[in-house]
Amino acid sequence: MSLVAVGSMAFDAIETPFGKTDKILGGAATYISLAASYFVKPVKAISVVGYDFGDANIGMLKAHGVDMEGVQVKKDEKSFFWSGRYHTDMNSRDTLVTELNVLATFDPQVPDSYQDCEYLLLGNLSPDVQRQVIERMENRPRLIALDTMNFWMDIALDSLYATLKLIDVLIINDEEARQLSGEYSLLKAAKVIMAMGPQYLVIKKGEHGALLFNGGEVFSAPGLPLEEVFDPTGAGDTFAGGFIGHLAKSGDISFTNMKRAVIYGSAMASYCVEKFGPEKLQSLKYEDIDSRVEEFVRLAHFELEF
Amino acid sequence: MSLVAVGSMAFDAIETPFGKTDKILGGAATYISLAASYFVKPVKAISVVGYDFGDANIGMLKAHGVDMEGVQVKKDEKSFFWSGRYHTDMNSRDTLVTELNVLATFDPQVPDSYQDCEYLLLGNLSPDVQRQVIERMENRPRLIALDTMNFWMDIALDSLYATLKLIDVLIINDEEARQLSGEYSLLKAAKVIMAMGPQYLVIKKGEHGALLFNGGEVFSAPGLPLEEVFDPTGAGDTFAGGFIGHLAKSGDISFTNMKRAVIYGSAMASYCVEKFGPEKLQSLKYEDIDSRVEEFVRLAHFELEF
Repeated sequence: MSLVAVGSMAFDAIETPFGKTDKILGGAATYISLAASYFVKPVKAISVVGYDFGDANIGMLKAHGVDMEGVQVKKDEKSFFWSGRYHTDMNSRDTLVTELNVLATFDPQVPDSYQDCEYLLLGNLSPDVQRQVIERMENRPRLIALDTMNFWMDIALDSLYATLKLIDVLIINDEEARQLSGEYSLLKAAKVIMAMGPQYLVIKKGEHGALLFNGGEVFSAPGLPLEEVFDPTGAGDTFAGGFIGHLAKSGDISFTNMKRAVIYGSAMASYCVEKFGPEKLQSLKYEDIDSRVEEFVRLAHFELEF
Repeated sequence: MSLVAVGSMAFDAIETPFGKTDKILGGAATYISLAASYFVKPVKAISVVGYDFGDANIGMLKAHGVDMEGVQVKKDEKSFFWSGRYHTDMNSRDTLVTELNVLATFDPQVPDSYQDCEYLLLGNLSPDVQRQVIERMENRPRLIALDTMNFWMDIALDSLYATLKLIDVLIINDEEARQLSGEYSLLKAAKVIMAMGPQYLVIKKGEHGALLFNGGEVFSAPGLPLEEVFDPTGAGDTFAGGFIGHLAKSGDISFTNMKRAVIYGSAMASYCVEKFGPEKLQSLKYEDIDSRVEEFVRLAHFELEF
């Protein structure tokens, strides 16, 4: 059940209709690791941070069971920084600032203690770096899942294609699935994308839930209607963390169990958006997750029999 | 199980990325009646048409079990005509032409033989006309469902409020729910709208499925991923027809059964969009409906137990 999570650990400054933050903790690997830590410990993180990341953040992650051995600390550089502003509908956002800093030269290291990796989640990063991590694993993990975004489709499509050939599960949103496949219909898009490599495809649809594809099978997970989406930052990473966390915990990678993993991922993401940044993910109880998952059951359940 | 369906019977000219029609059969009551006729016969229609509507259309509807006694034929006027063009994503459209014709002075008549009405579906029409139909029923039907659109919210909001007080189920889309309630969150919107009168609210989300609300309960029906949406015209009316048809057939208006009705409505709508206008609705088999409904079961089903 050894789980490795790769991605940025960073700072974000976020503006939503509900408020504004200064630099707060962010980054794909932060959200993924925190979410997955509710399912398995340790979560072995691979990332890079700068001198400014701080002992408090490292300590908080360690306290949640995140193994930081694979997280390089660059003493002369700053951490990755992103700043963005969400529109009123929370479905779109403008990037205000992107400072790559330590990410610009990220050379991911896989510590010896990570070589037992069975479940590998490659969070959103350059597809070159994602592929390097796979290549630096001595044995192929049992399951490799990958998140990416339209940015890499724009500037590094060939590298992304090369990386997609090596993975099992791709996790992207509907807009990205349409761009990657050139198809508007998500059913057609899924066929095109699965022919690129991944046997499993998760298409996230924000408030509308998520679709899971495998061969000719499709599963539709509902989106939980919420009174308020306070801050969507990290929701996709949190989904991915809950998804891989459930698979690693259960050790079952059947389609039936992957449907459950989508529900666990959705439940984790629905909590993430309730507060700024990863704040809510630091204070969840196991009962919270169970009760949220039960809400998904009630929300989606129907029977045809009378 | 007597079912009355009210709405326009009309002509549409439709442009989609896949093609273009001349004037073809359309109108809310046409789609509703055809869809509902797969569940109960007769479907007692209330509408108005012009001299141009034609015996062939009337005959086709009668052959599907639609009772045309409540459909007035105006010998000196033309039928309602709408023309529209869909955008590439099929989620938005431009209205090119609207000719009210017979609808401008529609004075709905309820024949004596319709006075046993138990299930009343008020398709999209002026809320004044919808309310008149309710008032002209000698006994209140067991269940009154209503479809409306943003147009009436813009120009006849007070009349719509008065009509909403009299109904049980409101069926609208997400954009309309947001406009009617002034709330972006559909959960908040549902609370505001149910306080206006209807105990039940269905929010249609197109390709993303539909939500059913009642008190504190919510049900999310998935949207069936389709290879192609050929023509979305009438999909909402078809949904409403399948929804009320299932309720009328089963005679069960519990929340549990209303969830099934949403699935049956979704299944009917998923067929409607496969061809231009109501063409597909004229040639369905009962087995088609059963197998599509089973697809919805497979699509949405998951279990938490291991």
